[in-house]
Amino acid sequence: MLAELRGLNEECGIFAVWGHEDAARITYYGLHSLQHRGQEGTGIITSDGEKLAGHKGEGLVAEIFNEQALSGLKGEAAIGHVRYATQGGGGYENVQPLLFHSQTGSMALAHNGNLVNAKLIKSILEQQGSIFQTNSDTEVLAHLIRRSGEWILKNRVKHALKQIEGAFAYVLLTEKELMVALDPQGLRPLSLGRIGDAFVVASETCAFDAIGAKFIRDILPGELLVINDNGLHTEFFSEHRNEAICTMEYIYFSRPDSNLHGMNVHSARKNLGKRLAFEAKIEADVVTAVPDSGVSAAIGYAEASGIPYELGLIKNRYVGRTFIQPSQSLREQGVKMKLSAVRGVVEGKRVIMVDDSVVRGTTSKRIVRMLKDAGALEVHVVISSPPITHPCFYGIDTSTKEELIAHNHTHEEIKRLIGADSLTFLSTEGMLEAIGRKNAGKNCGQCLACFTGEYPTELYPDTLQYYYQK
Amino acid sequence: MLAELRGLNEECGIFAVWGHEDAARITYYGLHSLQHRGQEGTGIITSDGEKLAGHKGEGLVAEIFNEQALSGLKGEAAIGHVRYATQGGGGYENVQPLLFHSQTGSMALAHNGNLVNAKLIKSILEQQGSIFQTNSDTEVLAHLIRRSGEWILKNRVKHALKQIEGAFAYVLLTEKELMVALDPQGLRPLSLGRIGDAFVVASETCAFDAIGAKFIRDILPGELLVINDNGLHTEFFSEHRNEAICTMEYIYFSRPDSNLHGMNVHSARKNLGKRLAFEAKIEADVVTAVPDSGVSAAIGYAEASGIPYELGLIKNRYVGRTFIQPSQSLREQGVKMKLSAVRGVVEGKRVIMVDDSVVRGTTSKRIVRMLKDAGALEVHVVISSPPITHPCFYGIDTSTKEELIAHNHTHEEIKRLIGADSLTFLSTEGMLEAIGRKNAGKNCGQCLACFTGEYPTELYPDTLQYYYQK
Amino acid sequence: MLAELRGLNEECGIFAVWGHEDAARITYYGLHSLQHRGQEGTGIITSDGEKLAGHKGEGLVAEIFNEQALSGLKGEAAIGHVRYATQGGGGYENVQPLLFHSQTGSMALAHNGNLVNAKLIKSILEQQGSIFQTNSDTEVLAHLIRRSGEWILKNRVKHALKQIEGAFAYVLLTEKELMVALDPQGLRPLSLGRIGDAFVVASETCAFDAIGAKFIRDILPGELLVINDNGLHTEFFSEHRNEAICTMEYIYFSRPDSNLHGMNVHSARKNLGKRLAFEAKIEADVVTAVPDSGVSAAIGYAEASGIPYELGLIKNRYVGRTFIQPSQSLREQGVKMKLSAVRGVVEGKRVIMVDDSVVRGTTSKRIVRMLKDAGALEVHVVISSPPITHPCFYGIDTSTKEELIAHNHTHEEIKRLIGADSLTFLSTEGMLEAIGRKNAGKNCGQCLACFTGEYPTELYPDTLQYYYQK
Amino acid sequence: MLAELRGLNEECGIFAVWGHEDAARITYYGLHSLQHRGQEGTGIITSDGEKLAGHKGEGLVAEIFNEQALSGLKGEAAIGHVRYATQGGGGYENVQPLLFHSQTGSMALAHNGNLVNAKLIKSILEQQGSIFQTNSDTEVLAHLIRRSGEWILKNRVKHALKQIEGAFAYVLLTEKELMVALDPQGLRPLSLGRIGDAFVVASETCAFDAIGAKFIRDILPGELLVINDNGLHTEFFSEHRNEAICTMEYIYFSRPDSNLHGMNVHSARKNLGKRLAFEAKIEADVVTAVPDSGVSAAIGYAEASGIPYELGLIKNRYVGRTFIQPSQSLREQGVKMKLSAVRGVVEGKRVIMVDDSVVRGTTSKRIVRMLKDAGALEVHVVISSPPITHPCFYGIDTSTKEELIAHNHTHEEIKRLIGADSLTFLSTEGMLEAIGRKNAGKNCGQCLACFTGEYPTELYPDTLQYYYQK
Repeated sequence: MLAELRGLNEECGIFAVWGHEDAARITYYGLHSLQHRGQEGTGIITSDGEKLAGHKGEGLVAEIFNEQALSGLKGEAAIGHVRYATQGGGGYENVQPLLFHSQTGSMALAHNGNLVNAKLIKSILEQQGSIFQTNSDTEVLAHLIRRSGEWILKNRVKHALKQIEGAFAYVLLTEKELMVALDPQGLRPLSLGRIGDAFVVASETCAFDAIGAKFIRDILPGELLVINDNGLHTEFFSEHRNEAICTMEYIYFSRPDSNLHGMNVHSARKNLGKRLAFEAKIEADVVTAVPDSGVSAAIGYAEASGIPYELGLIKNRYVGRTFIQPSQSLREQGVKMKLSAVRGVVEGKRVIMVDDSVVRGTTSKRIVRMLKDAGALEVHVVISSPPITHPCFYGIDTSTKEELIAHNHTHEEIKRLIGADSLTFLSTEGMLEAIGRKNAGKNCGQCLACFTGEYPTELYPDTLQYYYQK
Repeated sequence: MLAELRGLNEECGIFAVWGHEDAARITYYGLHSLQHRGQEGTGIITSDGEKLAGHKGEGLVAEIFNEQALSGLKGEAAIGHVRYATQGGGGYENVQPLLFHSQTGSMALAHNGNLVNAKLIKSILEQQGSIFQTNSDTEVLAHLIRRSGEWILKNRVKHALKQIEGAFAYVLLTEKELMVALDPQGLRPLSLGRIGDAFVVASETCAFDAIGAKFIRDILPGELLVINDNGLHTEFFSEHRNEAICTMEYIYFSRPDSNLHGMNVHSARKNLGKRLAFEAKIEADVVTAVPDSGVSAAIGYAEASGIPYELGLIKNRYVGRTFIQPSQSLREQGVKMKLSAVRGVVEGKRVIMVDDSVVRGTTSKRIVRMLKDAGALEVHVVISSPPITHPCFYGIDTSTKEELIAHNHTHEEIKRLIGADSLTFLSTEGMLEAIGRKNAGKNCGQCLACFTGEYPTELYPDTLQYYYQK
Repeated sequence: MLAELRGLNEECGIFAVWGHEDAARITYYGLHSLQHRGQEGTGIITSDGEKLAGHKGEGLVAEIFNEQALSGLKGEAAIGHVRYATQGGGGYENVQPLLFHSQTGSMALAHNGNLVNAKLIKSILEQQGSIFQTNSDTEVLAHLIRRSGEWILKNRVKHALKQIEGAFAYVLLTEKELMVALDPQGLRPLSLGRIGDAFVVASETCAFDAIGAKFIRDILPGELLVINDNGLHTEFFSEHRNEAICTMEYIYFSRPDSNLHGMNVHSARKNLGKRLAFEAKIEADVVTAVPDSGVSAAIGYAEASGIPYELGLIKNRYVGRTFIQPSQSLREQGVKMKLSAVRGVVEGKRVIMVDDSVVRGTTSKRIVRMLKDAGALEVHVVISSPPITHPCFYGIDTSTKEELIAHNHTHEEIKRLIGADSLTFLSTEGMLEAIGRKNAGKNCGQCLACFTGEYPTELYPDTLQYYYQK
Repeated sequence: MLAELRGLNEECGIFAVWGHEDAARITYYGLHSLQHRGQEGTGIITSDGEKLAGHKGEGLVAEIFNEQALSGLKGEAAIGHVRYATQGGGGYENVQPLLFHSQTGSMALAHNGNLVNAKLIKSILEQQGSIFQTNSDTEVLAHLIRRSGEWILKNRVKHALKQIEGAFAYVLLTEKELMVALDPQGLRPLSLGRIGDAFVVASETCAFDAIGAKFIRDILPGELLVINDNGLHTEFFSEHRNEAICTMEYIYFSRPDSNLHGMNVHSARKNLGKRLAFEAKIEADVVTAVPDSGVSAAIGYAEASGIPYELGLIKNRYVGRTFIQPSQSLREQGVKMKLSAVRGVVEGKRVIMVDDSVVRGTTSKRIVRMLKDAGALEVHVVISSPPITHPCFYGIDTSTKEELIAHNHTHEEIKRLIGADSLTFLSTEGMLEAIGRKNAGKNCGQCLACFTGEYPTELYPDTLQYYYQK
């Protein structure tokens, strides 16, 4: 399961609103529905037309904001951010949106994604005298905007966007304008909606449902939106656009009630599961899911195979940041947390265990063991994606090549290592078909880099080194 | 759904361990797995053979205990409690276990259930000079034990237990002994297990799985266990025992991975759903559950009816106690929290919505509306229990008779009030059969009071008045 | 200095108000001015004529109460308490006022003092079936009131007060009445004032100044006040009254701006210092005080002796409960906290160091060393009270006899142990004269027990044992 | 009293240590002793030779740091900061030390003082593309260092220091070096000490006493110290040095146990009081101080005049940041906080009230009224400094010219406005003589700008505008 390895960088959630009298509150509820994209930190910055005001902190949306904090955020425009834990980048300073003051005005920026040439740009800017106070890619864009020779802010921003490469979805707020930009590959999801007369932008469409907004359209790869009191203006900042949205958003990251490019995520996952049943053809007694990300695929698998779907694994909802981990000795005595196998369901049964992905394999191994300890006769692991053989440089942390179990081991070895009685990965073709992409070639519209090693952008020495040598 | 109406009293979770070197930690993990039974407050009290030490507070297990607090709880015996919000009884004072000191020794008590003659006993004791500092029924038992004329503690406890009536599962810890008692009807679940040489007791068997303990047997109605360094001793404190376990434990309250009287709760609920499909026979496109308590029944319904099971409703996991509720104005604009309908799944579909129960009907109405707003063509509400027509006096708060929608309205009226296209309740017979009780009569072993008005214990004027006039 | 040894029991501060529309707030400011009497915990309970409401917690007044908490405390009557750290009695349960509910009404109680027969009474009550949930003497009175056979509350209270012995100042609040009682020796200070039409009661008169109230008179030994909507009614509950107010209130405990029996505490202390100068006749260059309790006496000493008063010792005001104590190794390197000697003032000087008292001698020794390290040529310790040779049973913790340096050692030994060049204690006669008591005999109106061993009340085996054997 | 008007800028405390195995802890205790210089925020950054680590927050030293935080700060070098509340500059971002990362290494900076050309420099740097994330002058220096064309860090720092003007005391820490710089006027105090083999630097010498360090010497105006593993190296970065230390450090800001230029602050203040007695010649009964900053002067006044010194005003030590201010209505009823007059001392007396300074006059007026309400027959206000007629641009906030009562009003008017029976300011000559400066001319070594309007540095339009128009 992919969740096991998160922690490096910058799969986050962003939200923006322009023209709503309750801008801060709308952003609060919007961010709350994007909470699954990042639980480490969150912030909101509003503009009342004269100045920007903000509040942020490390923790959940519901923990960081209270009535008093929200009441202090006045104005009809706002941007917000929820942030994932990152290895090198904990700490209050890195919580977004970042706010930059200058004598000619202020600017707030929030970012979802990961640049592949950030380190290179930082080196050059530092040699020119710039000072960086955070580790985030967001600050890189701010410096590029500041240093652009252009006079009009929109042109400064375009000039800056042309220099960065990788996955990025930005929202930028000044006293007078909201700007929204998506990288030329459209690697991260980003959508536009309306609530009354106000515009809203969110990483996932589930945020629109949460606030009662209407979905308008997805932001296009390479698009720059400018929203101000004159309305919405759009243009492209890049001539080289080739859509390649992250496939993991379908498989693992997005919420089941979001739509990606018009397709409902739960339905996509259910399709993945159906297709998997078609490819796997396993004889078994029950289908069970690794919650939560395997649930939809398991339902699909059960439906297509006719094998009953059961709650064979239960997740404890109350594991929070302050939970005390069991000692090694207690763990050996069998103390569990977070996940437990339901003996009454799996005992004496041949179990199909559906998960979204295998990264290092350690979590899969632990769950297989748990099911067997609870009496499962056989455990057949079926994975609703192909083997992950290459690292991601665009923000979904699948760590270094060496840690990827599918990079170093054969199918048979992985099966043995995780202790499964059988192991099935979904084929790339099956996956693409399930999510509605007929064309399985290079221009399928999806980023398949972690499965195939074909990266949709250029890579840079620093980036490669970072991931391979760490 | 029953969750809408909790708030009066005392459906809680209890845990106890005797003879384990990490007693406090084992209790911590045990309580953590019982967290769904009460999120309002929690406490642990340990005995090191010489004295009792405790820690408690208002909040979740993971919030109240940290390393320092657990380290201070020394000894090989412990009892713990998680507590439900109660109307009249918030506040630190009411968080259990309660600890009573006297010059001859200390005693800690934790309780799950609700006494029907507590108020009467309190009146009498106060006239005799007793002072009560909490609103909890636990304190009543402590006073009765103290005032008993018997010399041996076990006899004092037996003498006290005979005087109380209603639903109760008690754990009692002194410096030298652990006692465990269950009411003569066995209204609340309570089980015995072993971990290594240690004995453990828990409200639900899922706690045994969480700590790696082995299930031994359920505590019997009217049983009093005494566990000390001489081992385990058991006897009955009551001659009039007639098993009547709360049926709502199967339908709504217990965790799906627990077993009740040998039956897995998920499986029981799936059976309820299957039976419901058999009784309902609705034509529809998708089956969806009101999460979380409707999930298992919905899976069963889908399996039996052949209609696909889908995630048509998504629950936001991050709604905590500090969440800011949307204002009326925002709510009217469509701001939601906690639950949202998945447009991509329900739009243009005839939807079967499976829920565990209907209490006041307001929640069902809200969800039906939500599904229709998301484009559902029809919404068929199917409920995996019979109509609730009578209040519960044993700890599951179904409030006063007047507030129960099924007390005041016909089936047709309820359907119209909640806006459903059809409404199906499970029959009492179907329900009993699904949970493995063949005998649908008075001695079926289940408490059916909220469905039938036949209460398994005597009732008292105070109790009745409290529920009817409030 | 006496501060070194606090920690056993119950020197606290109490406050009450009747008939003020802002009763909770008035109590908040009153308690705040009594904060020096106890920093461990605080609480306020109000009556709105119909029911009692309260808020309490462990910490300072300004920490425990916020706007929200105060807003919840409605009504025109209130009682409040600040509480000293106690060895056996930490924890939320012991924070006062205590609140007792019964079916015939509620009662809140707060207490300053220490009973000498509490343990005895507890034994008897427990044998009769009472349960105690706190360690505080306050609960003893509550039980006695409850068990009294009288019908009228005032008579029940009188009946209860007659049974307890020791130092006690009680305020008791019901829905309809405020009662105030002082022990027959008047060991603790307690005064009555008015603010507008409202009555106020406080442990010290400085609370009246803080809230703009007018001092009316001191509560008399053995007096019971009843204040309700009919006004103020007074009577005596004891026939055996012999005034013996704690002398340490003058020397150490009360705030300099309070008046005790009509005498300003700062002036009393200054007199003690003057008298000390008269008795000591030391040649020196500077007079310095151990802050804060030695300041007034040092000023008096300087004035009478003609030797300049200087700030030779400075107290760090920012040492709070969360301060991290220096490790042994750092302490040996000279890391200090709380108190530091001013080299610029004492270097090369013969220093007179004025302190209020010597208990175990360890603090005096540390300060003498500190002054010498800072370059003082000579350090002459002068103490504004006689040697403490006997333990206090009335609430000022001077610990067991064995720990009292003056119990075990000669004057010369103490001087040598603390490293002073000379050591002067004030004579008992000098002390009494300085605080305005001409008669130095048994009926001087002061409790001198800690200096003379003559206790103004009976003592009980339990009490004695507790202090001597612990 | 000056305390009434703090709030604009940057009178803070700094501390540094190099070569001590407990560097973070030593800094903790050092900062704790400098807490009076700033209670708003605090931080520590350490170097272990390889990298910098830090912890900071808004609050007191004892609140922000716990064992866990200190344990994370490894290394033998550290710098720390305590920060004053500032109008425009609240918030976590502005808490120092600031930490700047670059690909060639990290740098931490802490600052006490106020630059007069910061705004001008910021404008220029922003035009060149720099981004500022805080409002603090500290960041200005960081940018200047980064942009210097020099290769060696020391030279970069020197180059940067030459461009800034105003009051500044900086400590700068890299992985390998500690640098310390003081402005060419030496406006802020800064001293060098040793503890064992380690070097320490602190804003005030009281920090040396607190940690057991030995005072070596004051840092000289215009000096730059570089401390690294080769030892201590010193040079001057400016050719134009003219000592002008802030006189308010003697009168109000520093702790009484610190030494400034070899003179003990308490002794200096006592001299101010003696000189005031000589200049004032008032007939009165008691001398009392406005605590705490007036205490030493009052003692000196009493000693020189022969009028007894008394505690006529008491300060409540427990007023913290969370204290609830009394409402207007309660304040009119006489509810006080923080300061109260001692009726027993001042009633019926002619009182001399000694304070350090008069800024807006509102506080003095309040205290005079308080003393009269407590029964003082006459109140004679004597001030241990001359009238403040000009704003300070160097970090001690005396606000805009218009708010200074002595800028707009005659001596007689001020006396009437504050309700005093007489009002005496100390003469400038008397003040200089009292603090040991014989030469009362322009080169007296003191900054007298707030009394005379002669500023020791150039001023800049922005600065002037800021203070005059605000």
